[in-house]
Amino acid sequence: MAKTRVGILGYGNVGRGIEAAVNDAPDQELVAIFTRRDPATVHGANSSVPVVSINDIDAWKDKVDVLLLGGGSATDLPVQGPEYAAKFNIVDSFDTHANIPQYFDAIDKAGKGGGKVGIIATGWDPGFLSVLRVYNDSFLPNGHSTTFWGPGVSQGHSDAIRRIPGVKRGVEYTMPYDEAMNKARNGEGAGLTTREKHHRVNYVVAEDGADHAAIEKAIKEMPNYFADYNTTVSFITDAEFDADHAEMPHAGTVIHHGVTGDGTEHVIDTKLTLESNPEFTGAIMSAYARAAHRLAQEGKTGAFTVFDIAPAQLSPKSGADLRKTML
Amino acid sequence: MAKTRVGILGYGNVGRGIEAAVNDAPDQELVAIFTRRDPATVHGANSSVPVVSINDIDAWKDKVDVLLLGGGSATDLPVQGPEYAAKFNIVDSFDTHANIPQYFDAIDKAGKGGGKVGIIATGWDPGFLSVLRVYNDSFLPNGHSTTFWGPGVSQGHSDAIRRIPGVKRGVEYTMPYDEAMNKARNGEGAGLTTREKHHRVNYVVAEDGADHAAIEKAIKEMPNYFADYNTTVSFITDAEFDADHAEMPHAGTVIHHGVTGDGTEHVIDTKLTLESNPEFTGAIMSAYARAAHRLAQEGKTGAFTVFDIAPAQLSPKSGADLRKTML
Repeated sequence: MAKTRVGILGYGNVGRGIEAAVNDAPDQELVAIFTRRDPATVHGANSSVPVVSINDIDAWKDKVDVLLLGGGSATDLPVQGPEYAAKFNIVDSFDTHANIPQYFDAIDKAGKGGGKVGIIATGWDPGFLSVLRVYNDSFLPNGHSTTFWGPGVSQGHSDAIRRIPGVKRGVEYTMPYDEAMNKARNGEGAGLTTREKHHRVNYVVAEDGADHAAIEKAIKEMPNYFADYNTTVSFITDAEFDADHAEMPHAGTVIHHGVTGDGTEHVIDTKLTLESNPEFTGAIMSAYARAAHRLAQEGKTGAFTVFDIAPAQLSPKSGADLRKTML
Repeated sequence: MAKTRVGILGYGNVGRGIEAAVNDAPDQELVAIFTRRDPATVHGANSSVPVVSINDIDAWKDKVDVLLLGGGSATDLPVQGPEYAAKFNIVDSFDTHANIPQYFDAIDKAGKGGGKVGIIATGWDPGFLSVLRVYNDSFLPNGHSTTFWGPGVSQGHSDAIRRIPGVKRGVEYTMPYDEAMNKARNGEGAGLTTREKHHRVNYVVAEDGADHAAIEKAIKEMPNYFADYNTTVSFITDAEFDADHAEMPHAGTVIHHGVTGDGTEHVIDTKLTLESNPEFTGAIMSAYARAAHRLAQEGKTGAFTVFDIAPAQLSPKSGADLRKTML
């Protein structure tokens, strides 16, 4: 059977994660990397895969089955998503929770207009952890799912501290409290406050002569990002930063406590431990690319989320094989 | 909107678990309990729900949207499943892994013949843990899912020890080894032997005058059930049995270790902790009854498994609501 021809738009951390996953998929083939940069400056893992300017992407409309968008949710995807969903079947990892409904509508309109499928928000949260929340809530409606993130690097929070004057380099680790996770397992998750669930640990390399106290204050008082959390700030050297903070590990936990019948208690507890956030995100996107291609082949159009995709649509294995080996 | 009219066939432990779940579902209504026993001897939780002889079930074909089968896989479902899948949309918790392909084919043929939907094997294993195995394998194909059961009561193993001469009452607890679970998290799951993964702990009330040593030997040497495991047998009194072993708790864990890119490691670790195995099974069946009714309303027929059902089909919430609140 012909392999699904995958294109990647945006070759940053997530783009490279997608590339690694597609290379591992038995039924997918990476046919092009599209970039806003000068293509001559971008080098994929496999030199036989062309790197193409985004300005030339329209010539690839019949050569790419699914276009995976490696861009970020802040500025890239709100523009790129609707634009390319009209021309390609797309999969993205849009992760601004609050804006998902309007983004879904924009992709749905573009996809239906162009006769294409778009599967949005397919990372791990939103994404796989969202799927787990829906299973949990459907099986145990008298219950509550509590989501914890970390220990791991939050890209958004790290970006936020790097924008503070005097900060040369910075990284934020989101840390869940064990005590809060145990409360969630005991059915007390719904009552936990923001401050009780997570704390935030920051490592900063300051510019020479910068005011450390002012930086620490600016971090700890930053609204939304840090003000509602117990936050620590440590100043380290460039060498320490290179040695200890070059990776992008992350973790996520969804704990659902629910009750059936006459007070019978059940707990569904899922933990992801990821050595590389962008590689796992890319791996999930590759699986949903499989579903996007299948939906398109069935004649479907418009926007879909992870909630609309059955598990079998993600697997390269046949239904009969799955029933025999994995049920 | 009209509620889904649910019937239960077979009012044992699982049947009562289904009843509790349907009573908690905002969009489902229990309309009848069907039994092979004398209906006058069967009393549901709500006396307004009729208890009907299985001999009269055909009169309910237009009054039941989905029939949930509470029977067991050994003798009930192989007969009942195909018979009733021709007349009703059905959901069951068939759990004989090895026979699933042929059972699926029988339900598929019956359902297509009768224009009905059958969703089979919808408990938690097979069922929800199977779904997790497919997500895991689809996201991280270079990896391995290892499944552990317990600590908890295995109904099949408990039945097996109760068939031994001299055993008056007996219960088996399946126990996973912590060391094996840690090996699975470290990527060594595929190499674990049966004996390394679980051990089996039995409590027996013997008949007066029975030969304890003979009972213990019969248990420990029983092929398939116990011979491949480290097994312990403790003899207790009726009073101890009543005090400590009246419940049916269970637990299940799926640990997937996978690798992306250049040796980057990820672990997906899901644990179910269930105070009542049959109540959780019933809760899952109630959720899949929702999907069965929706598939039937879409004109689908034949057999489906949990792999074919998208998460949104299990939830009473709308797509827009799910995207807004759970993605």
